[in-house]
Amino acid sequence: MKIAVLTGGVGGAKFVHGLVMSDVALTAIVNTGDDFRHLGLAISPDIDSVLYALSGKDNRIQGWGRAEESWAFMAALRELGGPDWFNLGDGDLALHVVRSNALAQGAALSEITADFARAWNVRATILPMSDDPVATWIDTIDGPLAFQRYFVEQHCKPVAKAIRFEGAQGARAAPGVIGAILGADAVLIAPSNPYLSVDPILAVAEIRSALVETDAPVIAISPIVGGAAVKGPTAKLMGELGIAVTNASIAAHYEGLIDAMLHDESDAPPAIPARATQTLMATNVDRARVAQEAIALAQSL
Amino acid sequence: MKIAVLTGGVGGAKFVHGLVMSDVALTAIVNTGDDFRHLGLAISPDIDSVLYALSGKDNRIQGWGRAEESWAFMAALRELGGPDWFNLGDGDLALHVVRSNALAQGAALSEITADFARAWNVRATILPMSDDPVATWIDTIDGPLAFQRYFVEQHCKPVAKAIRFEGAQGARAAPGVIGAILGADAVLIAPSNPYLSVDPILAVAEIRSALVETDAPVIAISPIVGGAAVKGPTAKLMGELGIAVTNASIAAHYEGLIDAMLHDESDAPPAIPARATQTLMATNVDRARVAQEAIALAQSL
Repeated sequence: MKIAVLTGGVGGAKFVHGLVMSDVALTAIVNTGDDFRHLGLAISPDIDSVLYALSGKDNRIQGWGRAEESWAFMAALRELGGPDWFNLGDGDLALHVVRSNALAQGAALSEITADFARAWNVRATILPMSDDPVATWIDTIDGPLAFQRYFVEQHCKPVAKAIRFEGAQGARAAPGVIGAILGADAVLIAPSNPYLSVDPILAVAEIRSALVETDAPVIAISPIVGGAAVKGPTAKLMGELGIAVTNASIAAHYEGLIDAMLHDESDAPPAIPARATQTLMATNVDRARVAQEAIALAQSL
Repeated sequence: MKIAVLTGGVGGAKFVHGLVMSDVALTAIVNTGDDFRHLGLAISPDIDSVLYALSGKDNRIQGWGRAEESWAFMAALRELGGPDWFNLGDGDLALHVVRSNALAQGAALSEITADFARAWNVRATILPMSDDPVATWIDTIDGPLAFQRYFVEQHCKPVAKAIRFEGAQGARAAPGVIGAILGADAVLIAPSNPYLSVDPILAVAEIRSALVETDAPVIAISPIVGGAAVKGPTAKLMGELGIAVTNASIAAHYEGLIDAMLHDESDAPPAIPARATQTLMATNVDRARVAQEAIALAQSL
C-alpha cells in the first residue's frame, strides 16, 4: 500500500514512525515553515524530527531532538556570549553543519534530506514540502514573531492574531511531492498542529491542489485529545483564534481536503466519516496502532 | 614593558602564555596561514590555540585543542558519512560557528578575535596577522597540499619541496599589528615552526618591514631542542628543504630581522647574541621561565 503523509512537529514524526512500522510504502511530506537560520546554520526542525524518529534516534525522554544528546557546544557558546535561546545539541549540530554546507554548495534541501535518510537507512521517502524557503510568522498582539522566536524563545506565550507563511505563494512543491500524493492509495494528515505545522504545507498551492485532485481517501488524524492538545500550542492557539477546541473545528479547517478523520476516543467525532482510537503515542506500540487505525479507516472508505 | 610576539602553532601559544604570566603589556600577532574553511566553517587554528592557552582552556593531555573536549559532533558527522579527517570538538565548534556567522555578517577576523578574547577575559591583545585571507600551501613531491591537508590529514608525511603563502602578497597587516611592533620595547618570535608558522606572518610585507624598521630588540626563540624539534614537522621539513637542523640555520633564516636568539641549552648557539635555557615547556613554570629568559635577553641588548 502506498501512503503519503503530511507532517510537522514531533507528534507528526511519531505518527510517521508508526506508519513505517506498519510496512507501507511511505512518503513523508514535511513542513519546512519552521526552518530558519540560526548562527548562520540552516535548521530544519521538522525534517530532523522525522529523520530522528525513523532512525530510532529520537529523544523520548526530552520529547524532542536526538537521543543521548550532549550540550558542550551550548556551554561553550554561552561562554562566548552567544545566543542560547535555541538549543543545538552536539550530535544535532552535525545535521545543521552538513546541511548548511551542502546548501551553500548549491544542493537542494530535498537532496540533502535524501542523503541523510540514506545514511541512516530510513525505510521511507522523506521530502521537504518545498525546496524554496517558506517561513511561518505569527502575528501576535505584541507584534510579528518568526516561528522559532514564538515557539522556542517565547514558549508560545504571546497571544496570536494570525499566522502567515512568507514565501509560500511562489513556492513550488519539492520534487516527488505531487507524484507521491497523486500516486498514493491513501493520503494522511498527521496529528500535527493544523495551523502551525500542516497549514504551511497546504499553503503551497500545488500541494493543496493535489490533495483536492487525488481520488485516494484523505484522512486527518486529529491532534485533539480530551478537548485539548497533547503537546504544544494547538489548543491555546485555537482559543486565541476564536476556534472551539473540537474535532468539528479540525474537520472544518480541512474541509474540501479530507474525507474522514481518525480521532481520540475521548472526544466527540466530527460530522464526517470518522473512527476513534486512543491517539496518544507514548510507546512504539501506540505509534503502530494509531498508524494502523488510520490505514484501516482509509481502507474502509 | 610592551612586548609584541609573532606566533603560530601550539608551541607558540605556550610561549605566549608564559609572557602573559610575566605580566608584560602583550600583543600576540598570530599566523593565519593555517586558516581554512571546513564544512563551510571558518577555522583559525593558531588564533584558537592562543585563545585557549591564555584562557586556561588548552588541552594539555591531548596537546592541542580545548580542555575537557567531547566528540559527539564528530561521531554524528561520521554517521552521516561526513569528512572526519579534521577533528572538531563539541566545545571548539562554538568558536568556528560564531566566527563563521560573524564573518558572513561582515565582521573582520580581528574584531571577532577581540570579542572572543574579551569574553574570556584574556589579558593580552590577540591579533590575526591579517584580516585578509592568506593560505599556506606545501608543494610536495606528490603535488600541492593546503596546510591542513598536509599537517592533519597527511601527518606531514609527503616530502616538501617548497612552501608558499597564497594571498600574502596583497594582504595588509590587521589593524594594530604595525603599531604593536613599532611601539614595543621588544619584539619576540615564538618557538614556532619558522617555515610553516612564522614565515606566513613575515610574508605580509608591512609586518616584515616593521620588524626591520623597529629600534627595539627582536629576539627569536629557537624551536630546536637537541638537534630536533619538540613537536611537529620542523626538523623533518628542514631536512627536506636541505637545511641543517641547527640554531645557526634558524638565525640565518631570520637574518636581517632578529638581533638575538634564545635557544635550548642542549644545542650550539648561533653566531649572533644568544642565551641558553631549557626551552621545553611542559608546565606553567616552564612557560613562564622561557618567557622570562626571552625578556631578560631583550633587556640585556
